[in-house]
Amino acid sequence: MKHFAFDGRLVVVGFGSIGQGVMPLILRHIAIDPARITIITADERGHDVANEYGLRFINQALTRADYQDRLSALLGPGDFLLNLSVDVSSIALVELCRQRGALYLDTCIEPWAGGYTDPSLSPSLRSNYALRESMLGLRAGAGANDPTALITHGANPGLVSHFVKRALLDVAAACGLDATRPADRAGWADLARRAGVKVIHIAERDTQIADRPKQRGEFVNTWSIDGFVGEGCQPAELGWGSHEKALPPDGRRHDFGCDSAIYLMRPGASQRVRTWTPQEGPFHGFLITHSESISIADFLTVRDNGAVVYRPTCHYAYHPCDDAITSLHELAGKTWQQQPVQRLMMNEITAGIDELGVLLAGHGKGAYWYGSQLSVGEARSLAPHNNATSLQVTAAVLSGMIWAMENPNRGIVEPDEVDFERILDLCRPYLGPVVGAFTDWTPLDGREALFPEDIDRDDPWQFRNIRVL
Amino acid sequence: MKHFAFDGRLVVVGFGSIGQGVMPLILRHIAIDPARITIITADERGHDVANEYGLRFINQALTRADYQDRLSALLGPGDFLLNLSVDVSSIALVELCRQRGALYLDTCIEPWAGGYTDPSLSPSLRSNYALRESMLGLRAGAGANDPTALITHGANPGLVSHFVKRALLDVAAACGLDATRPADRAGWADLARRAGVKVIHIAERDTQIADRPKQRGEFVNTWSIDGFVGEGCQPAELGWGSHEKALPPDGRRHDFGCDSAIYLMRPGASQRVRTWTPQEGPFHGFLITHSESISIADFLTVRDNGAVVYRPTCHYAYHPCDDAITSLHELAGKTWQQQPVQRLMMNEITAGIDELGVLLAGHGKGAYWYGSQLSVGEARSLAPHNNATSLQVTAAVLSGMIWAMENPNRGIVEPDEVDFERILDLCRPYLGPVVGAFTDWTPLDGREALFPEDIDRDDPWQFRNIRVL
Ligand SMILES: NC(=O)c1ccc[n+]([C@@H]2O[C@H](COP(=O)([O-])OP(=O)(O)OC[C@H]3O[C@@H](n4cnc5c(N)ncnc54)[C@H](O)[C@@H]3O)[C@@H](O)[C@H]2O)c1
Ligand SMILES: NC(=O)c1ccc[n+]([C@@H]2O[C@H](COP(=O)([O-])OP(=O)(O)OC[C@H]3O[C@@H](n4cnc5c(N)ncnc54)[C@H](O)[C@@H]3O)[C@@H](O)[C@H]2O)c1
Repeated sequence: MKHFAFDGRLVVVGFGSIGQGVMPLILRHIAIDPARITIITADERGHDVANEYGLRFINQALTRADYQDRLSALLGPGDFLLNLSVDVSSIALVELCRQRGALYLDTCIEPWAGGYTDPSLSPSLRSNYALRESMLGLRAGAGANDPTALITHGANPGLVSHFVKRALLDVAAACGLDATRPADRAGWADLARRAGVKVIHIAERDTQIADRPKQRGEFVNTWSIDGFVGEGCQPAELGWGSHEKALPPDGRRHDFGCDSAIYLMRPGASQRVRTWTPQEGPFHGFLITHSESISIADFLTVRDNGAVVYRPTCHYAYHPCDDAITSLHELAGKTWQQQPVQRLMMNEITAGIDELGVLLAGHGKGAYWYGSQLSVGEARSLAPHNNATSLQVTAAVLSGMIWAMENPNRGIVEPDEVDFERILDLCRPYLGPVVGAFTDWTPLDGREALFPEDIDRDDPWQFRNIRVL
Repeated sequence: MKHFAFDGRLVVVGFGSIGQGVMPLILRHIAIDPARITIITADERGHDVANEYGLRFINQALTRADYQDRLSALLGPGDFLLNLSVDVSSIALVELCRQRGALYLDTCIEPWAGGYTDPSLSPSLRSNYALRESMLGLRAGAGANDPTALITHGANPGLVSHFVKRALLDVAAACGLDATRPADRAGWADLARRAGVKVIHIAERDTQIADRPKQRGEFVNTWSIDGFVGEGCQPAELGWGSHEKALPPDGRRHDFGCDSAIYLMRPGASQRVRTWTPQEGPFHGFLITHSESISIADFLTVRDNGAVVYRPTCHYAYHPCDDAITSLHELAGKTWQQQPVQRLMMNEITAGIDELGVLLAGHGKGAYWYGSQLSVGEARSLAPHNNATSLQVTAAVLSGMIWAMENPNRGIVEPDEVDFERILDLCRPYLGPVVGAFTDWTPLDGREALFPEDIDRDDPWQFRNIRVL
């Protein structure tokens, strides 16, 4: 079924796992002539897919020097730039689209190549917090009818912001609160405060496995290896809740911006945290920095005369597929020098699901997880060129594109500012089982059985209890 | 070639990966009538192997209540008890063998079931230090001609003590020191001191992989899963060197015994350390407690009027096979509740080596690794029922049995007290490439590229630099 008839041109930058995976969805649900689609990418991956759909394929990396000329020729009012690349500055592309009057969507605020690990930048300036502040800073020069630029709208960041709203309404109802859908940001933040949500984890367990084992010197993952290594080497970051009693010893505040988040003086790929999903139960995920950790915490902040009176702690707790666990272990052992070989698992996957959702915890009903439990088998039956991980992302990209086409003059928009029900309706056919589950699990369960630990027994939901030391 | 004609009876307790793997070596190199061999074990694993060799197979676990009666009937002067089990007290069996006049060998000082994780015991009493002190305490009641009980003589503990001596001579020669083979313990300790060895790692990288991926809830390893989980949940332990400037914040001394080692207030399976092997280069291993960490440090201690003037820091730095890395990650995520399913990888292994050796570091030539780089392919061609990991162990078991038969009245003996050249000669045919390699790698390499760290730049070989935080 077509949701929108789009008569502009579409430029897709980057054609890796997400670019290739979203294309069948775009062509299925948006009425567009394939002859008006151009792909600009930096390697040959996906050339066959482009050919299959009759798309123009340009294998020539965008650079700081040439992106303006090359993209300006392809973009004007009513056109669409879909940025699914690594190593190309999202901020540069958003500015260009604004100049050209073109719509824009990305799934991550990328810096130019090397920006995540530029040793000349302080950890604060290598953070997603800083990237987000720069991006939102563009709003200062905005016009009233600027073309919509929907930023960070993949699965996470992206879809999970909508899960949070759905889950908040479920928790409110379970707690016997008024669960009417709030009308605005202040209403959502107030609802989270009234429900007593202390902690929001983006809790993800990817169980996809293959019968082809990881080799030494190979980084294996179910989505971008460059993307994951890049963000994994950024500082661990988390939206910092108002219930937290003490800043971690290695925790730092930024000296600019909205102040919704802190960072730790270490790569996120070296920091494990305790979390929970319905199928997996308790597990250790990695505290990888993500834009949603910062934007959700910001969105749900309640202020009184400028002072923060409520904010949840919000962060990612990511258990990538097992082969990525050993890839990370190897990477850390090589002091973060990326492996020479990378393999994006796709056809060789034999089984597994990507259990991706949000865990809202610390309220009267304990903890509540809401999300998708998509299996690789179902993903393949729903769309070609996808695995379970990519389809959750590509469905969110598709829904975000449609929303942007339906709402073309909103300027720079974060997922938290979008109509969550419209997005969830568009995505749901591609998410497999979407479930909500309450649990009485807390990060104190089973602790100190063998050794004393530095824990806070009075409040299970202190970050100190969640962090693995 | 037969090394010894043994006319006693042989009782093998436990017939898992090591029991099954050692049997072809025993029958090849020790002249013994298979009809005089009895296996006592607690499950059906290896029944086919026992049948293949015509051995008596008793699938009935030994218990505290019945082990004396059952074993006494099978053991008298000149017989041999080979203990390759888990969950049966090594100390109980050594005492019994002494009473019966039988020879004894094990590869690990095991407590009765549950002893490694008995929450009623303090971490100090759950340590290998405590087990070793209890075992050596039996020497107090020893007779002059007690039957030999060679304890902890597998690959590690075991073979690696002999590698240390070989490596020490190589380092001494490279440093231009007198490298005559020392005559006694004091001589070895003095050589280590003169060579300036600060640190000894048992540095192991197991690269064996299979085309059958680990499942959720499954612990996969190349040797005993129960054995590994048991020791992994014990406190991390290390022989504590005289060059160390400060005890770790969570480091503790024992209030009894030889004081050669400390322990950390955490499971070894949760503590990574930086180390190096020739094929792998730098990597993170786990600080799993092992008897050799304590015995080697004790053996190489130099005292002056009772005060310690020299001792190396000595510990295990174990990178198990990749599937065991993810198994450990899962185990930690379940707060150390062992997975319901275990799989000992054997025939499904497709490639890989077990690179097992000792890294002597901090001397004038940097660091020196000496050990075995046995591949699974070579292991299979050398002996049936083995993988690369087990053959390093079973060769050491065989050599220790032969040494015990040749030296039947030595009482309780640790590997460090055995003629290392005899053992290495017996083992070498089964170890694949045995190599020595110098390196200028230190645990400071590549540090602080992205974040400041708490390191000691003045002495690379402080444990503080080696520990991963
Ligand atoms: N929000 C989410 O849920 C989510 C999920 C997955 C991926 N992502 C993000 O989406 C992006 C793409 O992910 P992926 O898995 O498809 O990555 P990928 O590594 O598979 O593909 C990246 C693509 O970018 C292209 N590229 C690299 N440099 C370029 C340049 N200079 N000019 C043009 N193209 C260039 C590459 O050729 C490749 O086609 C990444 O930024 C990733 O972080 C977001
Ligand atoms: N020093 C080394 O290098 C080294 C290396 C590998 C293993 N080990 C040790 O060797 C031992 C055996 O290792 P594995 O890999 O063969 O282990 P495994 O788990 O494969 O086998 C253990 C065996 O013990 C038997 N067992 C368990 N409880 C018993 C009981 N109550 N009575 C009699 N038998 C019992 C089991 O049935 C099984 O046959 C373990 O203690 C392990 O720690 C030492």
